[in-house]
Amino acid sequence: METIKIIVAGPRGRMGREAVQLIQRTDHFELEAVLDHKYNGILLSELEGFQGIDVPVYNDVDECLQKTKADVWIDLTVPEAGFLHTKKALEYGVRPVVGTTGFTEEQLKELKELANSKQIGCIIAPNFAIGAVLMMKFSQMAAKYFSDVEIIELHHDQKLDAPSGTAVKTAQMISTVREQKQQGHPNEKETISGARGANINGMHIHSVRLPGLIAHQQVMFGSEGQTLTIRHDSYNRASFMSGVKVSVETVTKLNDFVYGLENILE
Amino acid sequence: METIKIIVAGPRGRMGREAVQLIQRTDHFELEAVLDHKYNGILLSELEGFQGIDVPVYNDVDECLQKTKADVWIDLTVPEAGFLHTKKALEYGVRPVVGTTGFTEEQLKELKELANSKQIGCIIAPNFAIGAVLMMKFSQMAAKYFSDVEIIELHHDQKLDAPSGTAVKTAQMISTVREQKQQGHPNEKETISGARGANINGMHIHSVRLPGLIAHQQVMFGSEGQTLTIRHDSYNRASFMSGVKVSVETVTKLNDFVYGLENILE
Amino acid sequence: METIKIIVAGPRGRMGREAVQLIQRTDHFELEAVLDHKYNGILLSELEGFQGIDVPVYNDVDECLQKTKADVWIDLTVPEAGFLHTKKALEYGVRPVVGTTGFTEEQLKELKELANSKQIGCIIAPNFAIGAVLMMKFSQMAAKYFSDVEIIELHHDQKLDAPSGTAVKTAQMISTVREQKQQGHPNEKETISGARGANINGMHIHSVRLPGLIAHQQVMFGSEGQTLTIRHDSYNRASFMSGVKVSVETVTKLNDFVYGLENILE
Amino acid sequence: METIKIIVAGPRGRMGREAVQLIQRTDHFELEAVLDHKYNGILLSELEGFQGIDVPVYNDVDECLQKTKADVWIDLTVPEAGFLHTKKALEYGVRPVVGTTGFTEEQLKELKELANSKQIGCIIAPNFAIGAVLMMKFSQMAAKYFSDVEIIELHHDQKLDAPSGTAVKTAQMISTVREQKQQGHPNEKETISGARGANINGMHIHSVRLPGLIAHQQVMFGSEGQTLTIRHDSYNRASFMSGVKVSVETVTKLNDFVYGLENILE
Repeated sequence: METIKIIVAGPRGRMGREAVQLIQRTDHFELEAVLDHKYNGILLSELEGFQGIDVPVYNDVDECLQKTKADVWIDLTVPEAGFLHTKKALEYGVRPVVGTTGFTEEQLKELKELANSKQIGCIIAPNFAIGAVLMMKFSQMAAKYFSDVEIIELHHDQKLDAPSGTAVKTAQMISTVREQKQQGHPNEKETISGARGANINGMHIHSVRLPGLIAHQQVMFGSEGQTLTIRHDSYNRASFMSGVKVSVETVTKLNDFVYGLENILE
Repeated sequence: METIKIIVAGPRGRMGREAVQLIQRTDHFELEAVLDHKYNGILLSELEGFQGIDVPVYNDVDECLQKTKADVWIDLTVPEAGFLHTKKALEYGVRPVVGTTGFTEEQLKELKELANSKQIGCIIAPNFAIGAVLMMKFSQMAAKYFSDVEIIELHHDQKLDAPSGTAVKTAQMISTVREQKQQGHPNEKETISGARGANINGMHIHSVRLPGLIAHQQVMFGSEGQTLTIRHDSYNRASFMSGVKVSVETVTKLNDFVYGLENILE
Repeated sequence: METIKIIVAGPRGRMGREAVQLIQRTDHFELEAVLDHKYNGILLSELEGFQGIDVPVYNDVDECLQKTKADVWIDLTVPEAGFLHTKKALEYGVRPVVGTTGFTEEQLKELKELANSKQIGCIIAPNFAIGAVLMMKFSQMAAKYFSDVEIIELHHDQKLDAPSGTAVKTAQMISTVREQKQQGHPNEKETISGARGANINGMHIHSVRLPGLIAHQQVMFGSEGQTLTIRHDSYNRASFMSGVKVSVETVTKLNDFVYGLENILE
Repeated sequence: METIKIIVAGPRGRMGREAVQLIQRTDHFELEAVLDHKYNGILLSELEGFQGIDVPVYNDVDECLQKTKADVWIDLTVPEAGFLHTKKALEYGVRPVVGTTGFTEEQLKELKELANSKQIGCIIAPNFAIGAVLMMKFSQMAAKYFSDVEIIELHHDQKLDAPSGTAVKTAQMISTVREQKQQGHPNEKETISGARGANINGMHIHSVRLPGLIAHQQVMFGSEGQTLTIRHDSYNRASFMSGVKVSVETVTKLNDFVYGLENILE
């Protein structure tokens, strides 16, 4: 395989560190430089945890892109910075793989138009865990044949919001294919409020929170005499790196903008 | 083992039929008679589905108890009738095993006093599925060491009420041993109402309803770095008969009133 | 929807009875006749369990096809008879939907050639449970991204063979897409023989047998930091009917031979 | 609660570090000293990762016990050293809580006699994860009512031996209470060798190994119409500390030797 030259923006964050490690242990990946909002002009190896990785650290995105010859820009920063970086990368002809979440509809639209007009690949993925993305994709496929579905998502008890973003996204993806349906018995009633969970387009979502748990989701389909269950268990952040790897490999062959890992998985 | 002579009240109901079959296939059980609100003076074998079982059918509870010499009275009827039958059985010195649910607190108190004063065993069990009862018992035991617990109960979508009676009972049993605790992050919030389920004493209960499902419950405990899960799956009514069998065997050795199968399991 | 006229071969078998019921309760399905190896010239309604269904019963397949005008032939008999019926149906231009398992490679080849030369649809499906088929299909898709997979299949303890046919089929389908791999640690060792299960192309299959269980299978994929699990629970034979329904609806639009429900699901 | 003064042997190991942290964050626990095979005469705070914990480090077990006034000795070292430490602690009247595994039968016998003759508490626990211990205890209890059981244990694919020690221990505990039984159909046969797993006294054990997994075990019981499942998921080493805490609190009230956490849980 041909070597893919990569810049990482946000190397000191948790995801960024994993990405640098991924590049180091992948034969056909090569780290060219990193962009860091704090350090400039040093070598990455001077920072803790990056021993022996002698690539330049840049603070300015233009300088970084001008002085480096890279194929792919991995961005694991925050929305505002990430949006700017992605635009710049596209302008310099470097293909972005972006794990930053929280872009607005307008920002996504602008990036899409830019990538498509330049005809260079750009992947923006709010979730890089391939297992989670397949779970959502399979759920959407199954919903064509099973009109009844409930989602149980389980997380550690430090999570503030319920239901999880992944559960809501799954329900939305299912909604695009299934016949509209209010599930459960028409006369069912909650003797204690909340028992039947949150309701999205007639689907029910249940959020379990317990210490010990990490990040899990189970999508259950039922029809007469059978149930089909698709479950993803995420134990740690390393799970995201398989998705980053597939994205980097795919983006070099793309000529347009893709939102969501599910759209590059076959 | 000595033979135990048994009367069944309510032989034509679904549970009653299973009970008659249980007695027929158990070596040391012997069916003496049945009580039926509709038929009188015929043989059980004359009714559909009881071929070859030549025991008398009675319509009157006093007559039934006077003319029959039985050790145990299995009652699988409705609350009003069941209460009367149980009292009569105790008065005639026949030990009741009662699966009828829905007795009032007062009725239970009256039966308890009667059994205890007569010093004869009486078992009233709202749930005869040993697996379900062990699930509740183990959950209560685990709650001493795990202060965080959530209950997920899953049933077919023809069930009207949520949460299920078993889930509520499990939460109540846990409440008797665990330190009072409002689970989840203090600042957690539902972005869609109901996501975190029903709340009983700080515990969360989630009710899943899908066609295909039968009757299932999962109790999950979490603490740092681990979860413990106890799950019961009930696939059909035959699951109740193991509990009826243990109850019949146990009641003949009891001299007092017991409510709940969990109190006769070690 | 246009009405689909149907013949059922093997109406008194367990699957056959379900198929007749399915047709009766589906608005756009219409039962024209049944083929039965024992009865001839009577009405189906004369047989137990088919009250009010006044369609003719034939014993001879040619006579049945000549005297009836049907669109689809549902065959739920045994392999020898099923092969003959399917050929005859194709010759008469009636589209077969066949749930009979156990055809030889040669028989399948012959039926394929016949259907394709006549350009009429023919669906042969060894498994009509849509959930089970989706489980296999999703497993095959997931195996492209997860090279490690184990299969746990769970059945009642009256099942004689282990592993189940579905588990073997799943492993074979996965084998067509995944990189060959011997899983587990290279130096792993069984301190008790059999612990690591059966081995198909480096994948491990575990067969659980317990009373109470019905028919269940769980396919687990793992990669760093995550697992993806796809599970099917079959509670009773009714689960097959959703697949029969989809097949009948699909076969009327097909012009060729299809083996396996997975090839008609999108 | 009265303060419990504690010595930790093996503070730099993974378990030892967790134990030191546990003591630091528990109000009524107080760290007195540590025993380390490498360092002597310094303060623990001089070693990396123990900032601010100014307790003496000893290399010699006698000196450590003479110069320190402690109630409990937590030993998280290796078997040879652990055996010696435990004997010494008992001789000095300090109650041991030992997580070191791999003692011989003779060593355990000697420690038992010593503790019992001195009438001071001593807890040796090969597994401190309360959830795992409860899983085993509940399994043993359930086996009285369910004669059919299978064990599925699931671990990361770096594990060398199968089945796991916990699975074997669970089967042994169950064997002490259940009627001897060869499970599965008498005529069942493996079409691929190993499918039915390892066999311990008629019980079947299945070992799943996948990257991503950590340490999980599921014990399944079945009887007509129902299954009961008890599952423990261990996500990280922190799970052991709940057991260490309970053991330290319990050992101060004990006057004899106890082997296995299950014997101090009610």
